[in-house]
Amino acid sequence: MNNFDYYNPTKVVFGKGTHEKLPKEIAQHTSGKRILLTYGGGSIKKNGVYDSVIDALQDYKIVEFGGIEPNPEYDTLMEAVELAREQSVDFVLAVGGGSVIDGTKFIVSAAKYEGEPWDVLAQKEGFSFREALPFGTVLTLPATGSEMNSGAVISRSDRKEKRTMGGAQTFPKFSFLDPTVVATLPHRQLANGITDAFMHTLEQYLTYPTDNLLQERIAEGILSTLIEIAPRVMNDPSDYKAASNLMWCATMALNGTLRAGVAYDWSTHMIGHELTALHGIDHARTLAIIAPNLYRVKFENKKDKLIQYGQRVFGLDGSCAEEAILRTKTFFESLGIETQISDYTDGAEKTPQIIEERFDERGWKGIGERGDLTPAEAKSIVEMSM
Amino acid sequence: MNNFDYYNPTKVVFGKGTHEKLPKEIAQHTSGKRILLTYGGGSIKKNGVYDSVIDALQDYKIVEFGGIEPNPEYDTLMEAVELAREQSVDFVLAVGGGSVIDGTKFIVSAAKYEGEPWDVLAQKEGFSFREALPFGTVLTLPATGSEMNSGAVISRSDRKEKRTMGGAQTFPKFSFLDPTVVATLPHRQLANGITDAFMHTLEQYLTYPTDNLLQERIAEGILSTLIEIAPRVMNDPSDYKAASNLMWCATMALNGTLRAGVAYDWSTHMIGHELTALHGIDHARTLAIIAPNLYRVKFENKKDKLIQYGQRVFGLDGSCAEEAILRTKTFFESLGIETQISDYTDGAEKTPQIIEERFDERGWKGIGERGDLTPAEAKSIVEMSM
Repeated sequence: MNNFDYYNPTKVVFGKGTHEKLPKEIAQHTSGKRILLTYGGGSIKKNGVYDSVIDALQDYKIVEFGGIEPNPEYDTLMEAVELAREQSVDFVLAVGGGSVIDGTKFIVSAAKYEGEPWDVLAQKEGFSFREALPFGTVLTLPATGSEMNSGAVISRSDRKEKRTMGGAQTFPKFSFLDPTVVATLPHRQLANGITDAFMHTLEQYLTYPTDNLLQERIAEGILSTLIEIAPRVMNDPSDYKAASNLMWCATMALNGTLRAGVAYDWSTHMIGHELTALHGIDHARTLAIIAPNLYRVKFENKKDKLIQYGQRVFGLDGSCAEEAILRTKTFFESLGIETQISDYTDGAEKTPQIIEERFDERGWKGIGERGDLTPAEAKSIVEMSM
Repeated sequence: MNNFDYYNPTKVVFGKGTHEKLPKEIAQHTSGKRILLTYGGGSIKKNGVYDSVIDALQDYKIVEFGGIEPNPEYDTLMEAVELAREQSVDFVLAVGGGSVIDGTKFIVSAAKYEGEPWDVLAQKEGFSFREALPFGTVLTLPATGSEMNSGAVISRSDRKEKRTMGGAQTFPKFSFLDPTVVATLPHRQLANGITDAFMHTLEQYLTYPTDNLLQERIAEGILSTLIEIAPRVMNDPSDYKAASNLMWCATMALNGTLRAGVAYDWSTHMIGHELTALHGIDHARTLAIIAPNLYRVKFENKKDKLIQYGQRVFGLDGSCAEEAILRTKTFFESLGIETQISDYTDGAEKTPQIIEERFDERGWKGIGERGDLTPAEAKSIVEMSM
């Protein structure tokens, strides 16, 4: 087992009918009364979450900032940073899914940063976020795990760029996870959420057999649980048993538990982010497009773990590595997710070449768990995914 | 899934050769330089851990308090409380196993408490610990999980009593987990540690099938991993792969992960604590004595989960509930642990009766996951264990 640090101070408040506890949780982190409430396209005003949160926060002065878009945009978020400063808010409450929470991690950091925040996102040497306004979340979409980690992805679509950020200052102080929101979600978002959680797990698992026996079994537990509950969630999102398991799996898939001491891959995400930047394909869907072909191109690297995955998660026998890839693709398709780029866009002829060039420009000689997936292999994977 | 809160702010620093990071971690929690170093019977001075820790803390003024015994004693700990106050220490560092860490949780709380600390342990209404000195741990024995939770058990052997305590103030700020210490442990402690972790898991799992699908699979993952690595650890404690998995399993078994949203039992512990108080039998061994008979007495309650356990953990088929109990007992015996009270003491004739009376005195009409294990059943379980 590799040496590792594990630290996750986010408090999870999980279950139905818990919003009345919001003031108590906020009071642990500020005696101030000015809250910036961040949200997305307004679904929270239709599904009752907004009313319930506002009702719980009657003793606070609420400043609202809505309109944080999927793949949250730097320019949008900078407007919220201005607002947070102008209004001298004491606390930020993100009410939404992964994009709202990611965007809020940037807002709370940039609000306390004196320089140009893009310099930090661009990972220029010497620029970093060191402090942040305290913030919490009310999760409305199980998917990204952002509610219980410190990471975020921020976009500048005018430059077709996505950048990651993180650090101890951007753990939410608390996150409220109420599985009843699952019943309000459209099929497309449910399918994306299941796929996202599944792929977060595979990125930290589908490498090579390691000596992290427990972490591997936990990863297999998440994958098995998602496979078990997915048809029930898709068929009846108001099934609380299925919905609550989806929500907890999505959180556990990216809260640091799986990563402890293991080798991890993340190259599907790296290629997938480019597909979103270039063609606007939903993040989760880019993963479903890329992963099976990436596993084919890196088959020799991953063969032993694919067999373990096939046997323990899909109950297959013997040398089942190829069958395990096929089952993975079939699982995504069972959610109604299409797994070719051509299912989403017609104008992708140059995409493989562009992605190879971008990886080259960033000096990525190799990525993945062995650091050996080359820009040329990334190009091949995208070609196979057309 | 039941509503739950999950919160665990302890930072884990896991792996070999990490003690040099101690000053950096301590500095996150105090700018002071006075540290109380707590430890047990002195094994840390033989196995190199003491020297390594002292070496890392050269810039600190160290006050030592050794001699915290297994099942730490109130009177002993009160001496450390006096020392902590006299010396105005800024931070406490527990270097040891579960007893040293449990004792230290009491010390840091009592040092900040103005009344009589026993009133809190006796759970008298209105008495509670609300603050504590900051403390961290260097774990030397994988077993109790105390390094990553807020709970502790404190004894007054003159009264043959054990009491529990806990609360947000007694999470360690950090815990250093170095699996190389496993190589220095005697067989008896290794067997106890494996049994302790196994039983912590069973107490939170072996109830009835629930809708906590992921938590159940994580519990099964810990049990399966312990069964896989136990013979290797017992045979060669210097096997780092086996030792590191034992250490992480023991921590994960009692850090809140398994408990999230589930029904739990803990009646084996409640009866076991009495056996330790009455006869001085090692804590872990009392659990191995009691659990199989408790599962027999509460067979109808636990039958369905015993079958799931038998199938998923032991790979049994069909209606394997009784066989699963037998395999559990056989597993403990494979570690060299004897599973009858008469293996440990001759003078236990009155023990079943005494335990029934004590449970009665405490007003425990029923304990366990359904609250229906009566004092009379506890008596039967102990009789079957003679």
